[in-house]
Amino acid sequence: MKEYILLIDTIDEKGLVYNVSKILFANHLNIEQNAEFVDKNSNKFFMRSIISGELNPDILLKELKEVLPKESTIKINLKSKKDIVILATKESHVLGDLLIRYNSGELDANIKAVIANHDYLRDLVEKFDIPFHCISADDMEREAHEDLVIEKIKEYSPDIIVLAKYMRILTPKFVENFPKQVLNIHHSFLPAFIGANPYKQAHHRGVKIIGATAHYVTDDLDEGPIIAQDVLRVDHTYSWEDMRRAGRNVEKVVLSNALQLLLEDKVFVFGNKTVIL
Amino acid sequence: MKEYILLIDTIDEKGLVYNVSKILFANHLNIEQNAEFVDKNSNKFFMRSIISGELNPDILLKELKEVLPKESTIKINLKSKKDIVILATKESHVLGDLLIRYNSGELDANIKAVIANHDYLRDLVEKFDIPFHCISADDMEREAHEDLVIEKIKEYSPDIIVLAKYMRILTPKFVENFPKQVLNIHHSFLPAFIGANPYKQAHHRGVKIIGATAHYVTDDLDEGPIIAQDVLRVDHTYSWEDMRRAGRNVEKVVLSNALQLLLEDKVFVFGNKTVIL
Amino acid sequence: MKEYILLIDTIDEKGLVYNVSKILFANHLNIEQNAEFVDKNSNKFFMRSIISGELNPDILLKELKEVLPKESTIKINLKSKKDIVILATKESHVLGDLLIRYNSGELDANIKAVIANHDYLRDLVEKFDIPFHCISADDMEREAHEDLVIEKIKEYSPDIIVLAKYMRILTPKFVENFPKQVLNIHHSFLPAFIGANPYKQAHHRGVKIIGATAHYVTDDLDEGPIIAQDVLRVDHTYSWEDMRRAGRNVEKVVLSNALQLLLEDKVFVFGNKTVIL
Amino acid sequence: MKEYILLIDTIDEKGLVYNVSKILFANHLNIEQNAEFVDKNSNKFFMRSIISGELNPDILLKELKEVLPKESTIKINLKSKKDIVILATKESHVLGDLLIRYNSGELDANIKAVIANHDYLRDLVEKFDIPFHCISADDMEREAHEDLVIEKIKEYSPDIIVLAKYMRILTPKFVENFPKQVLNIHHSFLPAFIGANPYKQAHHRGVKIIGATAHYVTDDLDEGPIIAQDVLRVDHTYSWEDMRRAGRNVEKVVLSNALQLLLEDKVFVFGNKTVIL
Repeated sequence: MKEYILLIDTIDEKGLVYNVSKILFANHLNIEQNAEFVDKNSNKFFMRSIISGELNPDILLKELKEVLPKESTIKINLKSKKDIVILATKESHVLGDLLIRYNSGELDANIKAVIANHDYLRDLVEKFDIPFHCISADDMEREAHEDLVIEKIKEYSPDIIVLAKYMRILTPKFVENFPKQVLNIHHSFLPAFIGANPYKQAHHRGVKIIGATAHYVTDDLDEGPIIAQDVLRVDHTYSWEDMRRAGRNVEKVVLSNALQLLLEDKVFVFGNKTVIL
Repeated sequence: MKEYILLIDTIDEKGLVYNVSKILFANHLNIEQNAEFVDKNSNKFFMRSIISGELNPDILLKELKEVLPKESTIKINLKSKKDIVILATKESHVLGDLLIRYNSGELDANIKAVIANHDYLRDLVEKFDIPFHCISADDMEREAHEDLVIEKIKEYSPDIIVLAKYMRILTPKFVENFPKQVLNIHHSFLPAFIGANPYKQAHHRGVKIIGATAHYVTDDLDEGPIIAQDVLRVDHTYSWEDMRRAGRNVEKVVLSNALQLLLEDKVFVFGNKTVIL
Repeated sequence: MKEYILLIDTIDEKGLVYNVSKILFANHLNIEQNAEFVDKNSNKFFMRSIISGELNPDILLKELKEVLPKESTIKINLKSKKDIVILATKESHVLGDLLIRYNSGELDANIKAVIANHDYLRDLVEKFDIPFHCISADDMEREAHEDLVIEKIKEYSPDIIVLAKYMRILTPKFVENFPKQVLNIHHSFLPAFIGANPYKQAHHRGVKIIGATAHYVTDDLDEGPIIAQDVLRVDHTYSWEDMRRAGRNVEKVVLSNALQLLLEDKVFVFGNKTVIL
Repeated sequence: MKEYILLIDTIDEKGLVYNVSKILFANHLNIEQNAEFVDKNSNKFFMRSIISGELNPDILLKELKEVLPKESTIKINLKSKKDIVILATKESHVLGDLLIRYNSGELDANIKAVIANHDYLRDLVEKFDIPFHCISADDMEREAHEDLVIEKIKEYSPDIIVLAKYMRILTPKFVENFPKQVLNIHHSFLPAFIGANPYKQAHHRGVKIIGATAHYVTDDLDEGPIIAQDVLRVDHTYSWEDMRRAGRNVEKVVLSNALQLLLEDKVFVFGNKTVIL
């Protein structure tokens, strides 16, 4: 039997669960998993259900719209593999981790292509029979280069764009083109150490714990909604290069966990935060 | 407006959420929080809702019973402070932590009494104006001593009995008297190091991480359903006494977290496991 | 046999370990524990040894000075209990934790007094027969109030001053009076969320991990050398008050760990960082 | 200038540090890093120094032997890349992680070959131009198969043999052939869940934290000296397959950290424990 993911993001009011469950019941659908969250301060309601049975998404959507508040966002996604495009620069640890998972079938997604602004990673990517496109930024304006990247991404119509240590700053135009689709890994425990070389900053500050943060990309650099974070203990014996080496493990695990959440449609964006159901 | 916690533990079947939410809606009740879990393997359904409004628990229970499977366990608890009795021996760190939280109002419970098999902790407990009963086990059979303890506990009719480093083994009779009411903290990362002196065992095995486990007490020593666990890194410089000292922080935090879950009615027991909603 | 802690903070050069160990050997002293650290970038050398035997600290110091670089800082401390004075305001969790440890003998220090700018915690402190001084800041200039606090602290000549959620900002004068003696607990994972109400800031930013930081107090608020940090996972269901409640466990454990390091003379300050041997 | 790692494992006695540092000083050698540990219970002394300068290892060894207790184990290793051989079966996550690190230069070792008892991973390994040998165990006695594996390993004279999810039990003969050279990753937080399918065991026990353990292989299955451990939180929503998937991240990070320690000669074996300097 086919499985669908029902996602509802709306204003909280009495009877929401009743109204939704009534329609699902009337359509003879099973609720395989169900999670809800009400944010009292903002009076928002979020719901994610895995439902199974015979259904026509358009008809179900229409029925749900009739009983839910007007401002509701409702999605019914067939449970299936999503397409992703990866952007990288020179560092291979996050990209390599994705490739190994992809190769073993553990990553439940199709990697359609890898795009980089340098050619260093071509050899690695092509080992796995994935298209690699080098779009050099040499002698180009930022906007012109980015336009080429946007164009190349669009050829693959990905559901998610993963910045796997892509070391270039994106313009608002990029974000506009792929709203809530761009996942980044920042190599610090945000909001500590925003910007360039967080490991050097962390070393200079003498912290005893370092971390990594996976977040949606928005117009504000390193300020997008946080999806996942993790940390690692360090001590005075770590140079900043030691921190960077140790931090790579955290970076790839955090990115991998965040991507898994996106692949399972578990993340709602809510202001500058995420609700994960 | 009064708040109630609705707890349902039943067999999964189509329409459960619909049926429950229909009754809540018909009674003009608000769902303030809602969480469900379906265990596919065992076909079990668990639900915890915080509901608000005017309600008669007996009538609501009757209405819910009519639409839920016969084998269902349904509880409707008024949200209010629970009564607890603490059992201790000589060690003060877990007990002391509870007393400090109680004193500041952070522990949302009434500590009715502390019962111990030694008199060491009397001075500490009485500082906080809590009844302290020393029931010595000297020159007594295990059963006879335990009978006195059971009797004393029953005088206070507690909702929860907290073993705060109570170093005596309980008989099945004790557990029978207080089913799913007895919370213990074991000073290891169970199931590693069951039994006596886990820190010595951990030191001898040369582990790099130690932990603590809060669990319900059942007839099998250290085998009851686990509610919360946490860990701490150690290294070769730790003697077993160092591990014990460092471990105390984990013990008290884990017990405190587990107790908080019980006080909020968040824990379902399911076979030898817990579901925490 | 008496035990001493030898602390050396100097410029690295060839033969340091040889020169120090030669003198210890010539004096028939045992090295019970030894740890060194060389910071290559700054060419600094740190050493902490626990030594036992019959020794005259003044003579040993003189002998060590002769073989070590001129700029060396050398200390020989008899291993013994240190005196501490605690400053607090209204919150009791960190203070209470220290009191419980003190009461059980686990805290290897003498709490000489608690000083607070409110009278809320008097009852708690006096339960443990520790002098409590309320020095109200009402209707006073910051400097005048602080002068009274400094004066009161000095009556007790403490080795360490612990800010156990003391919610007032200290002036440079305070820090000058007690250089490298003031330990603070900040309720965030510094350098994230400097300043007031870090839990509100953390909640607003939507972080998935919160933390606490114990650090030496310097003239720059929340910028002193970090001694210990720890973290805790949170999620979208946490209000900022939930974060605060959960964070309290981390605060008290981190402060307790940092204080333990100070009591054992394990912390060297090095620029704005710490070396922990 | 060349760097060497000096490793001393001996009985503790007065003057050890003095005697060793005297010889290093007399030989005009720099101590770049130094760490010692004394185990009071067993009266054992461990020392690891990174030394630089012009030296003849044989002569230095002779000089050190003269001043150290007879039973001392002394090693002087030129700091250089070690050779490793990897054994695997079908699972690719740990192997793949090593390959990606190797490919990027992050793994400071030479992977000489991968040997497996199935042919599944050939394609992956050969992408990285590393020899892959499938030695099938079909229709063979355990000992006969193992003899072939031992023989093949010996062709490469590796310093370290990494069991990257090699799912066969090794005989004492294997261990004898490669004493203190075989590193295994066990997919549980040892000593919990020894033996087959630890994730199923963990799921059945209802633990709230799972882990992984890297250890030296000895004759007792899963009982060898532990080198590194790490953990991961799980909850009631995890099936055992979910635990396995989540656990893979921990497995590869723990193995990677343990291997790094071996590559830097930081691990001493001491009874059934490790001292890590």
